Amino acid sequence: MATSVVVVGEEVMRNKQVIFKDYVSGFLKESDMQVINGTLKLKLPEGSNGIVVKNLCLSCDPYMRNRMTRAEGPNLFTSFTPSSPLTGFGVAKVLDSRHPNFKKGDLIWGTTGWEEYSVITELEGLFKIQHTDVPLSYYTGILGMPGLSAYVGFYEVCSPKEGEYVFISAASGAVGQLVGQFAKLMGCYVVGSAGSKEKLSNFYLAYFKIKHYLFFVDLLKRKFGFDDAFNYKEETDLDAALKRYFPEGIDIYFENVGGKMLDAVLLNMKDHGRISVCGLVSQYNLDQPEGVQNLMCLIYKRIHMKGFVVSDYYNIYPKFLDVMLPYIREGKIMYVEDIAEGLESGPATLAGLYSGRNVGKQVVLIARE
Amino acid sequence: MATSVVVVGEEVMRNKQVIFKDYVSGFLKESDMQVINGTLKLKLPEGSNGIVVKNLCLSCDPYMRNRMTRAEGPNLFTSFTPSSPLTGFGVAKVLDSRHPNFKKGDLIWGTTGWEEYSVITELEGLFKIQHTDVPLSYYTGILGMPGLSAYVGFYEVCSPKEGEYVFISAASGAVGQLVGQFAKLMGCYVVGSAGSKEKLSNFYLAYFKIKHYLFFVDLLKRKFGFDDAFNYKEETDLDAALKRYFPEGIDIYFENVGGKMLDAVLLNMKDHGRISVCGLVSQYNLDQPEGVQNLMCLIYKRIHMKGFVVSDYYNIYPKFLDVMLPYIREGKIMYVEDIAEGLESGPATLAGLYSGRNVGKQVVLIARE
Repeated sequence: MATSVVVVGEEVMRNKQVIFKDYVSGFLKESDMQVINGTLKLKLPEGSNGIVVKNLCLSCDPYMRNRMTRAEGPNLFTSFTPSSPLTGFGVAKVLDSRHPNFKKGDLIWGTTGWEEYSVITELEGLFKIQHTDVPLSYYTGILGMPGLSAYVGFYEVCSPKEGEYVFISAASGAVGQLVGQFAKLMGCYVVGSAGSKEKLSNFYLAYFKIKHYLFFVDLLKRKFGFDDAFNYKEETDLDAALKRYFPEGIDIYFENVGGKMLDAVLLNMKDHGRISVCGLVSQYNLDQPEGVQNLMCLIYKRIHMKGFVVSDYYNIYPKFLDVMLPYIREGKIMYVEDIAEGLESGPATLAGLYSGRNVGKQVVLIARE
Repeated sequence: MATSVVVVGEEVMRNKQVIFKDYVSGFLKESDMQVINGTLKLKLPEGSNGIVVKNLCLSCDPYMRNRMTRAEGPNLFTSFTPSSPLTGFGVAKVLDSRHPNFKKGDLIWGTTGWEEYSVITELEGLFKIQHTDVPLSYYTGILGMPGLSAYVGFYEVCSPKEGEYVFISAASGAVGQLVGQFAKLMGCYVVGSAGSKEKLSNFYLAYFKIKHYLFFVDLLKRKFGFDDAFNYKEETDLDAALKRYFPEGIDIYFENVGGKMLDAVLLNMKDHGRISVCGLVSQYNLDQPEGVQNLMCLIYKRIHMKGFVVSDYYNIYPKFLDVMLPYIREGKIMYVEDIAEGLESGPATLAGLYSGRNVGKQVVLIARE
């Protein structure tokens, strides 16, 4: 069993951790991770430039599966280290700091460990949380990396215009639900796709007073204001489905899934359409990616396709907050989270992300303060 | 045998034609086309708004294979009509005109038939040739559709900068040879790939005084000034080849071929690289396109990929000519054509385009005036 040690004063604390056991091949399983009891000293040694944090909530993001594959070549994500805790975006509270920008008691969001306490020494990309009139978990989603991804991926990459036809895959996820609402605020026609999980919690079914198979469609339409929505798992022919929802074609595709969906979308894009490539979640658990065959449409339809990485846009985060906070406070943008309680739920919750088990942004709550 | 009739005065002329026999599946073969003797009246009836032309030379362009497949969906090229002559870009002389913009004796380039004489009634996209101090065949290439494609695909789509690393596939073709020279004029580092045909003409081998296997590399380097070049048919691992030629990665890829080459290029692009998608010739003869697997690189590397269709840029043709004519006259841009003599050579010449038999822009010369 791996251990790590931190002391508050003299005290060595228990530090529960979610360990990444080894490189993963194929679909992520709960058993690819393990919860252990490590230990940690909460006091930093002199000469350190880092901070010690208590982790409050962790973000389950699709890209994390990529870090579980042994990285090849210099340009991909760094792989997780086998037998070490997962890392990812989270919200945390500073317990000790040797860095001038952070002090004890500060709330932060950024990259941290999947464990109760973390020592963070790479502080670039950590943001101090200034506004606490919204749930702290929002900083793993609507006010964090996924929110900024939705914002830059839609406004900066797609150059949207009023009245355009917008399609969003993985539309009930953290990014998709926001892109759809941005597009509606701009006066676009918006359709989303999502994959309904097998069994929905009674809470959601009761909340929306609807039958299971209507759930996703209703979530996207009633809660987020999408013009229409469909469950891709119920469609045998994605091309036909898109032709039904977009008889005039698609101006903007916000790409979260890739593979067969991208191939079907390419056939249904309008001339001069734009594709913002945010993620390709359908491919992350495949040892060999599906080939995309309809790239000829890029030429015929003069399509502009662009990938982006949100960290390139961290400089506009303050501007983004200025836009988003009023939207949230005034109820102009809705936000749905799927919160799993306790670090022990981490492995099953993260694995569930890739089978569409979550409804809304998936968060793991470790502690409330 | 199909026939068509034109009369000069009372005279019914023979009109040799290259007939598209039927929709093609798989690699284009010479036998998919047939040369026949039709007839034609060279005088237009009253009430017509068209022109009658004598075709001088015809352009063999990769996209033509697409028009031989039965078109599905509304957004692709219109298929050729079985049992009718092929159509494509060419240079022709006006014999009779009922349209105010054209008069007898005018030289034009644009879409015409693969036949000795054509009646053209769709005059949009026909250009009058004003400058005849260059070979007329240049208006099927460097001064025609491929030249304008190279120009807009490089300058407008790629936003090139001095010192950038540029890779061009199908680099000895009509478009590729020009893109490479544009990039050199801008101060880029340029590498091209091409597929050597099995047997080169003695003329070319004598001209360059080189051995067969060095031919393409030397053509691109000595004649066009590329920094380096390789024959992709001699490479078993395209990824490794690109890493050899671009150890620091590729800023700009001018895409003419698609498929496996695109997959290898994606792995070798630099961050914020640009891919101008002009053509995917490796795919045109396949019933099912190869799947492209490495699209994840679009995200990691923030790649901008854009397809374009040259006819969208016809409005800048006068500006393009103002740039190109001095380049040609001053010898700043070289241009290599592969000229096949006689309409009878049309079927074999066009089929040869897809096995890399041509060296430089492939033209079929029908008549000198």
